[in-house]
Amino acid sequence: MEAPEIRILSAGTALPGDPLDNAGLARHFGMDPLWEQWVDAFVGTRARHLSVDLATRQLRYSLADLATSAAARALDGAGVGAADVDLVVFGTATPDQLMPATVNVVADRLGINGVPTYQLQSGCAGAFQALEVGGRMLQACGLRTALVIGGELCSRHYDPGVDLAKLDSQELVNFVLFGDGAGAAVLTTEPAPGTPVVRRVLNRLTGLGRPPGQVVEWTGALDRDTANRAHIKEDYKAIEESVPKMSREIADELLGDLGWGPSDVDYLLPPQLSGRMTRRIVDALEMPVAEEVTRVDTIANTGNAMPFFQLEETLPQLADGDRVLAVSVESSKWIKAGFALEMA
Amino acid sequence: MEAPEIRILSAGTALPGDPLDNAGLARHFGMDPLWEQWVDAFVGTRARHLSVDLATRQLRYSLADLATSAAARALDGAGVGAADVDLVVFGTATPDQLMPATVNVVADRLGINGVPTYQLQSGCAGAFQALEVGGRMLQACGLRTALVIGGELCSRHYDPGVDLAKLDSQELVNFVLFGDGAGAAVLTTEPAPGTPVVRRVLNRLTGLGRPPGQVVEWTGALDRDTANRAHIKEDYKAIEESVPKMSREIADELLGDLGWGPSDVDYLLPPQLSGRMTRRIVDALEMPVAEEVTRVDTIANTGNAMPFFQLEETLPQLADGDRVLAVSVESSKWIKAGFALEMA
Repeated sequence: MEAPEIRILSAGTALPGDPLDNAGLARHFGMDPLWEQWVDAFVGTRARHLSVDLATRQLRYSLADLATSAAARALDGAGVGAADVDLVVFGTATPDQLMPATVNVVADRLGINGVPTYQLQSGCAGAFQALEVGGRMLQACGLRTALVIGGELCSRHYDPGVDLAKLDSQELVNFVLFGDGAGAAVLTTEPAPGTPVVRRVLNRLTGLGRPPGQVVEWTGALDRDTANRAHIKEDYKAIEESVPKMSREIADELLGDLGWGPSDVDYLLPPQLSGRMTRRIVDALEMPVAEEVTRVDTIANTGNAMPFFQLEETLPQLADGDRVLAVSVESSKWIKAGFALEMA
Repeated sequence: MEAPEIRILSAGTALPGDPLDNAGLARHFGMDPLWEQWVDAFVGTRARHLSVDLATRQLRYSLADLATSAAARALDGAGVGAADVDLVVFGTATPDQLMPATVNVVADRLGINGVPTYQLQSGCAGAFQALEVGGRMLQACGLRTALVIGGELCSRHYDPGVDLAKLDSQELVNFVLFGDGAGAAVLTTEPAPGTPVVRRVLNRLTGLGRPPGQVVEWTGALDRDTANRAHIKEDYKAIEESVPKMSREIADELLGDLGWGPSDVDYLLPPQLSGRMTRRIVDALEMPVAEEVTRVDTIANTGNAMPFFQLEETLPQLADGDRVLAVSVESSKWIKAGFALEMA
C-alpha cells in the first residue's frame, strides 16, 4: 500500500502585542536618528513584535502563550478539535523551560492528551523538521491528523538594559533582527480537495567541518556566574556569504527532485533573515513568475514561526495546480531546509 | 508493501571520569556520615559520574563529548561507518547550547553530513521518542540506517559551591539523584538475524490538567538576574505516587498490544529514577521470570542516556525468542514511555 499524501489544512499565527518600529527601538536605547536610518537601509527590517516590555523587563507572553494562540487558530481554521489531534510536533530554539517541553504545556492548554508529542530543538530549520516529522509519523503510524507548531521567544535573549552604543555591530544587530511569534499548521492524511499536498520536505545537515554561523547559549546553575556573557553570537560574514548560495542549492535540489522548472513556482517563500538579505536571496533564486511571500520586513526574523506566517498568507491565495516553494537556511551548523507544495 | 521491521544492531555508552560515591559527595559538601547513610538507605543510589570537577567548577566533558564517544562505540559495534548513517536522532533535556543543536556538533565530529538530524527536547522520554522517530523515519522515507542517541549533562544544573545543609530536602536530593552520561544505538531496516526487532515504542503524553512533576529552567540574557534561582524543581510526592502506577499502565498497554503475558518478558528494563524507586516499581510490575536490568544504583539517573545503558547490558545476553520490555515515565508533564523488543 502506498503511503497517503500529506495535506496542509490550515495555518494560524500569533504575535505578542503591538509592533515596535525602528524609531521606537532607537528611542528606548537612546540611539540617534542616524542609527535608525542605518537599520532601515542596511538591515531592511522595519518593525518587530516583542514579548518583553522594554520598560519593565517583564515578559508579557510566554512561548507557550503564543504557540497556544497560533495552534488554536490553526485548529479552528481546519475545523479540527483537540480530540482529533493524533500527534503534536513543535520546532523551537527558545523553549520556555528545558522541562517540561513547551509542546506539552501547549497540548495541555489545548486539551490534547494521550498522544505522542515531540519538540525539536533547532533554529530556522525547526519548522521544516516539524513539518517532515509530523507528516512522516502520520504515514508510518497510520494516523490522520498532526498539529505542527513553530515559534520563538527571542525576547529571552534580549537585555533591555544594555548600552547599545557600546556593543560591537555584530552584537548590536541582534537587537534589530529578531522578533517573537508563533505559528502552526494542521496536517492530514485524508483526501481534502482544495488544500495543498506536501510534495517534499528537505532537511539536510551540511555542516561538516564548518564552524557554526550562529551560537546561542543558555545558563544553568553551574555557570550562573557567566550569565552576563553574550548569549547570541553570529558570524554575519559567513552568513551573508553562505545563505544566498545555499538557498539556491536548496531550490535546485527540490525542483530537481520534483521535475519542476524555476518558472513552475507560483509562490516563493524565501529565507527571512532580514529585509535586505531576503532581497539578495530572492534575486539569486531567479524564479521568473513566482510571487514572493515575505514577512520579515514587518515582523522581523521570528525563526521557526516564520514559515507559518508565510503559509498563512499563501494558503488563501492558492488556486488549482499552483506550486509553492519554501527555502530556509539554519546558519547555526548549516542546515538546508525547504518544502514544496502543490494544489492537487 | 509492508513497512520493514526495525532492528537494533548495537548499543554504546559513555560516562565522564570516575564514579563519585556518596562518601565522596558527603566529603565535598561537608555533610556528615549520617547524611551519607540516609542517601544509601532512602535514595538507594550509591554513585554517579559527574562531568563537573567539584573542586574547580570546570566541565571536563560536554554533552557533545560524551555523545560522540557513545555514538562512535555504537557505530563500531554495528560495523557501520559514518557514510552509512542516513539519519541521526538525539534526545536530551540538557543540550550544550540552544543553537547549534548538539546533535549537529556530534554528527560533525563523527563525520556524518548531508543527512537529516533531529534533536528532541525531553526528559526521560526523549530516548524513547528518539527510538520511535528514528525507526519510523527510516520506514516512511525508505532509508536503512539510523543513529539514535540519548544523553544528559546534569552537571550544568549542579552548583558545587552550594551549602547543601541549607537546602530543603527536595532541592538537596537533586545533588544525589542525577548523573551525567550518554548512550547510542544503531537501527536498521535490513534483515539482521541475531538482533532484536523493535516490536513497539510507546510515547504518550498523559499530562492533561496535571501540574508538572519536574521543572527545569534555563537563563538567558533577559533573566540573567535570576540566574541564582533554583533551576530544578521536583514534586517528589507526586512522582512517588504516580510513577509506579503509570509504570504498570505502560507495561500493561505494551503487553496488551502485543498479546504478551507478564511471564513472557525475559528482560525488564524498568524506570531508573533512584535505586529505591526502581525497587518499588519492579515489585509493582510483577513480571515473574524477567531478569531486571538496572544501572541507576551505580551511575544514578542519567535521563535520556539510561535506556542505552540498559540496552548495552541486555543485547549481548539475548537468545532466540527472548522478549524485552522497557518502561519509563517522564515526570515533567507526565509522559508514558516504553518499548518492546523480540529476538526473531
